[in-house]
Amino acid sequence: MLVVMKHNASEAAIDAVVDAIQDMGYGARPIPGGQRTAVGLIGNDGRVDKARLEGMEGVLECISVTQPYKQVSREWREENTLVRLPNGTVIGGREIVLMAGPCAVESEEQILTAARQVRAAGATVLRGGAFKPRTSPYSFQGLGEDGLKLLAKAREETGMAIITEAIDPEGVDLVAEYADVIQIGARNMQNYPLLRRAGQTGKPVLLKRGMSATITEFLLAAEYILAEGNDDVILCERGVRSFDTHTRNLLDLTAIPVVKGLSHLPIVADPSHGTGLRSKVVPMGRAAVAAGADGLIVEVHPDPTRALSDGAQSLYPEQFTELVEQTRVIAQAIGRELHPGLARAGAGQG
Amino acid sequence: MLVVMKHNASEAAIDAVVDAIQDMGYGARPIPGGQRTAVGLIGNDGRVDKARLEGMEGVLECISVTQPYKQVSREWREENTLVRLPNGTVIGGREIVLMAGPCAVESEEQILTAARQVRAAGATVLRGGAFKPRTSPYSFQGLGEDGLKLLAKAREETGMAIITEAIDPEGVDLVAEYADVIQIGARNMQNYPLLRRAGQTGKPVLLKRGMSATITEFLLAAEYILAEGNDDVILCERGVRSFDTHTRNLLDLTAIPVVKGLSHLPIVADPSHGTGLRSKVVPMGRAAVAAGADGLIVEVHPDPTRALSDGAQSLYPEQFTELVEQTRVIAQAIGRELHPGLARAGAGQG
Amino acid sequence: MLVVMKHNASEAAIDAVVDAIQDMGYGARPIPGGQRTAVGLIGNDGRVDKARLEGMEGVLECISVTQPYKQVSREWREENTLVRLPNGTVIGGREIVLMAGPCAVESEEQILTAARQVRAAGATVLRGGAFKPRTSPYSFQGLGEDGLKLLAKAREETGMAIITEAIDPEGVDLVAEYADVIQIGARNMQNYPLLRRAGQTGKPVLLKRGMSATITEFLLAAEYILAEGNDDVILCERGVRSFDTHTRNLLDLTAIPVVKGLSHLPIVADPSHGTGLRSKVVPMGRAAVAAGADGLIVEVHPDPTRALSDGAQSLYPEQFTELVEQTRVIAQAIGRELHPGLARAGAGQG
Amino acid sequence: MLVVMKHNASEAAIDAVVDAIQDMGYGARPIPGGQRTAVGLIGNDGRVDKARLEGMEGVLECISVTQPYKQVSREWREENTLVRLPNGTVIGGREIVLMAGPCAVESEEQILTAARQVRAAGATVLRGGAFKPRTSPYSFQGLGEDGLKLLAKAREETGMAIITEAIDPEGVDLVAEYADVIQIGARNMQNYPLLRRAGQTGKPVLLKRGMSATITEFLLAAEYILAEGNDDVILCERGVRSFDTHTRNLLDLTAIPVVKGLSHLPIVADPSHGTGLRSKVVPMGRAAVAAGADGLIVEVHPDPTRALSDGAQSLYPEQFTELVEQTRVIAQAIGRELHPGLARAGAGQG
Repeated sequence: MLVVMKHNASEAAIDAVVDAIQDMGYGARPIPGGQRTAVGLIGNDGRVDKARLEGMEGVLECISVTQPYKQVSREWREENTLVRLPNGTVIGGREIVLMAGPCAVESEEQILTAARQVRAAGATVLRGGAFKPRTSPYSFQGLGEDGLKLLAKAREETGMAIITEAIDPEGVDLVAEYADVIQIGARNMQNYPLLRRAGQTGKPVLLKRGMSATITEFLLAAEYILAEGNDDVILCERGVRSFDTHTRNLLDLTAIPVVKGLSHLPIVADPSHGTGLRSKVVPMGRAAVAAGADGLIVEVHPDPTRALSDGAQSLYPEQFTELVEQTRVIAQAIGRELHPGLARAGAGQG
Repeated sequence: MLVVMKHNASEAAIDAVVDAIQDMGYGARPIPGGQRTAVGLIGNDGRVDKARLEGMEGVLECISVTQPYKQVSREWREENTLVRLPNGTVIGGREIVLMAGPCAVESEEQILTAARQVRAAGATVLRGGAFKPRTSPYSFQGLGEDGLKLLAKAREETGMAIITEAIDPEGVDLVAEYADVIQIGARNMQNYPLLRRAGQTGKPVLLKRGMSATITEFLLAAEYILAEGNDDVILCERGVRSFDTHTRNLLDLTAIPVVKGLSHLPIVADPSHGTGLRSKVVPMGRAAVAAGADGLIVEVHPDPTRALSDGAQSLYPEQFTELVEQTRVIAQAIGRELHPGLARAGAGQG
Repeated sequence: MLVVMKHNASEAAIDAVVDAIQDMGYGARPIPGGQRTAVGLIGNDGRVDKARLEGMEGVLECISVTQPYKQVSREWREENTLVRLPNGTVIGGREIVLMAGPCAVESEEQILTAARQVRAAGATVLRGGAFKPRTSPYSFQGLGEDGLKLLAKAREETGMAIITEAIDPEGVDLVAEYADVIQIGARNMQNYPLLRRAGQTGKPVLLKRGMSATITEFLLAAEYILAEGNDDVILCERGVRSFDTHTRNLLDLTAIPVVKGLSHLPIVADPSHGTGLRSKVVPMGRAAVAAGADGLIVEVHPDPTRALSDGAQSLYPEQFTELVEQTRVIAQAIGRELHPGLARAGAGQG
Repeated sequence: MLVVMKHNASEAAIDAVVDAIQDMGYGARPIPGGQRTAVGLIGNDGRVDKARLEGMEGVLECISVTQPYKQVSREWREENTLVRLPNGTVIGGREIVLMAGPCAVESEEQILTAARQVRAAGATVLRGGAFKPRTSPYSFQGLGEDGLKLLAKAREETGMAIITEAIDPEGVDLVAEYADVIQIGARNMQNYPLLRRAGQTGKPVLLKRGMSATITEFLLAAEYILAEGNDDVILCERGVRSFDTHTRNLLDLTAIPVVKGLSHLPIVADPSHGTGLRSKVVPMGRAAVAAGADGLIVEVHPDPTRALSDGAQSLYPEQFTELVEQTRVIAQAIGRELHPGLARAGAGQG
């Protein structure tokens, strides 16, 4: 860390900063400049709280040179992390993975139909919420454990892996019993007790970026999971808050190559929540893959106009098929390829 | 709700929208206009999910005319809600209330010293975190229950009411055992299981606005607490995410009169997190009261340069005293007054 | 427009709104609802100023149902506008067009070298600033008319069309003398005298989206140009302001399909300013085409480390070639194709 | 400036950075750290373009330690700049100054009535637009020079100083002929030819912060005016773009103490554009003064419901009087006072 002093900071102020740094157990090295002095903090292990120094007399600002995260960084581990699911799907490698399904599990017929449709199109992971965090307390909140059981049934029938959301620390173990991947939603990106508990299950975790999380905060949230000894984290860009009301969120696709540069973890995109508009999901799904995403997670519903939640952003099954076909070509343009899907592999054998 | 059709929407598309609305159990009334038709949804009780309609053929957009929240709204209850604490402090009335103390409870000496200092200056509520949600897993996470016990000791000695944060549903009951007000932090504003559990305790809850929450989302989060039968909610503006890096957050003081217009709940401001800079806390604390806040929650530390967290935004005790004196005059300018404080009232009798 | 009344608005207040609307020359139709009344304004020609109504007694809000822009909208003209340049390049059709070159014209050697390089790779339009709007008055401000002359020389030699920026109304005619496309920069998106003057030249105009412009404001800015009788407007998404500092701007690729839905005008993307980072330009350029952009405008410099401005976001020529090759495949994935370029067509023999 | 290298940057990469810095005419000093090396750039005069360095091999990021602006900074001049108007109003001193009047000049009766009303309440500067930059080309664009003449008439009659907006470089001289203060609107904050020309007039300039301008960009825009030898610049906070639609803009009052810390220039607030809602103007005007603003610029219209622009945010004259009275008390709370006004001082007998 670099503590930049004001240009008129006194010697005493500079000495006080040096003392404070040493008092915290680090080395301090004053660096005089043309206009002002800076004090370098040597030996930062990522735990330094710059707030303490920032408030001191004569300090202009503290600049982090060391990244605050550790295990998630590419400097910690250079090769890509590969997250392997029980049905053979690998996320983070050369193949691009498709996760699809309805926003919420609504009924056996709905989830089974959806599963068959998206599997036929090429998806290998089935999404569907059993516990739904909803902005209003009066909206549909999900089927709970019954929803988890229906997902398990869909897995048994189709061979797809299952991803579903956990919304509180107490519920994580229940979700982990059924799911192949535990999803942490955007609203819970900084719900640290939930992150820890999800990390402790040892199951792969898909972590969605918070509504207005910086990339550093996003990686630090993932660090909570890795700090529990669980490296199987899949990051997910799903749009950030914006001033424009034409779309629900502003899908920040540049985050994908930025994260790829900073971290070894795989990252997928969610163009459904990222746009909130069915007609924009296909172009933005394509764009995400072109930008380097390791996969897509997409809402597809057998009958979107009757969906109990997020119907307006759910694709019709035939739109999903179109997306898959276009994505296949785009993957090749960048030297990757689409996961061949379970259908071809003769999967679905439970 | 008003479903606005595209200007070239077919009769069939309009009929389909009417059918869908009726299918959802509401009345539908087409309103032909010069350029396009709109369909009014009659009888909306706040539970209509516009997503389903938005995705339909020929629909341009759905416009909410009815507010999505209910019990928090001023249309539901016209007079201000008054939140009464055991030590006589009332939040939401004519008097402006001061809550102050360190970011985190660090030791008995620290919290007792801080309590005496802020009480002497005029505060009647003591803040201090025992459970700290931190961006990095490697930062100080709070003293836990030991911190709660120290807060209780400070209450016993000074007569101040205690506000402290709960960070997970499982921990709410423990916090409620000690605290007079349960604080829900910005990162947890949409942690619905936590909101519900806090609501169930029956204790007053101070709910901080999320980092990028709209005012509607903020009020809907409060609605989760009221929906549990707990009306004692204090809202707190603490800054939103911004593109400028000069301050930690962008304190949105206009939210104060806006919330006052929409809701009967009291609202206070947190200029410490709202700016992240000690030197800006006093001016912004004054400004918040001038804008109509029902109180302030301010970080004050006996020795900010040694604080274990957020030292850079903690006031020195003498700065807090200055803020209190200036606030006293400002309160009068707008026909209110500062709570006289416990010192004058001969309080602190446990 | 729909004027939504508060639920307790008096009859007198509703009547006053009706009167005000009629006084403005429009029809008014009260629409009673379950909880509140709304008043529809009939015959809105896009000129209604809602501010007047919004401030009236008993009014909750005014909701625009009619879009405020006219000639730019797809409801005004259904087929795509094709912007044709003298060298045969057509923007807005099936072919994707590449515009490339240095941020600023620096010298004859630099611009000629750059022109040859990007033409060889497949670009048909040469970019290069002669007048540079710079955040600091102390930064390099461009070569002025000398820069324009060098661009003309490059056109003569290579057959490329020329795009360059005008920064004030007085300078537009000079720029129009040399350029095939007049560029209006993001900082000037709402510089209305400049927009009008650019419109009056009759030359094609490339209009960049402002730093924090909504899509509606973006289209309204284009409307200023069309209102002068000039339909040859190319829109350009170049990133909006964001809270994250990892990239210079947040490239809003979803704006591309959104604009395509609302307007008949072509839209291209600028991944160079949109990211500000050389290593992100190629992935985001690919993504823009996958999202449906009609072209790319990219900074390429023969020797980026010696560039006088924006060197950090300029591609090396070989990176641009890589982008072109990948884009060619992506175009096919979505049923389009890359403009074959001047090299192949044997053009530009000057 | 500090050039931070990646932790695995090669010696050659570090040497290349040192060479590039020296090639630019500055000194370079490598600073080895525990995890990575940084290279200090010595002698930065604010003209260094970090883009060139940022794109180099092995560079992680460039951190500006020196502020990019010069003459506007408090390090350049320590005492507050006082801007003196012909009618004796001084902005930037102990007294808080009130500027008020309608959004646009509409007629002789309207502007004279408004002038008398706001003067009686305590304002000493009359605002009113003759040239209006409007988002839509179809909205009222102002009376032009006729409006300027009416403003001059109002000055003659009331003794108030006149502030009005210039929207293009060619029109600045005309505006300067009539106005005591030239206003540069938010949309034109980075219209550099306009800033230069306004600077050249030698007249005081009120510069509004751009819609999403950082404070650094805001100060750099002011630097353009000072660089022309004109120190009489008044900054104006008028709200920034936000994700919440309850208000037109997000009034960033913290910018006031931040700017006061960084610059010697006076800063006022515009709560009318800052909120866009009449009912929020009074509380936010009070709050701005409490935060340390040197004055307010407020829209007041004799009959807001008939205003040709921005009626919804214009105060009724009696509301303005209320604001003045409350502001008077608040000014005292912070050791300042309200300018006594022309009425009391017997001025403006013109």
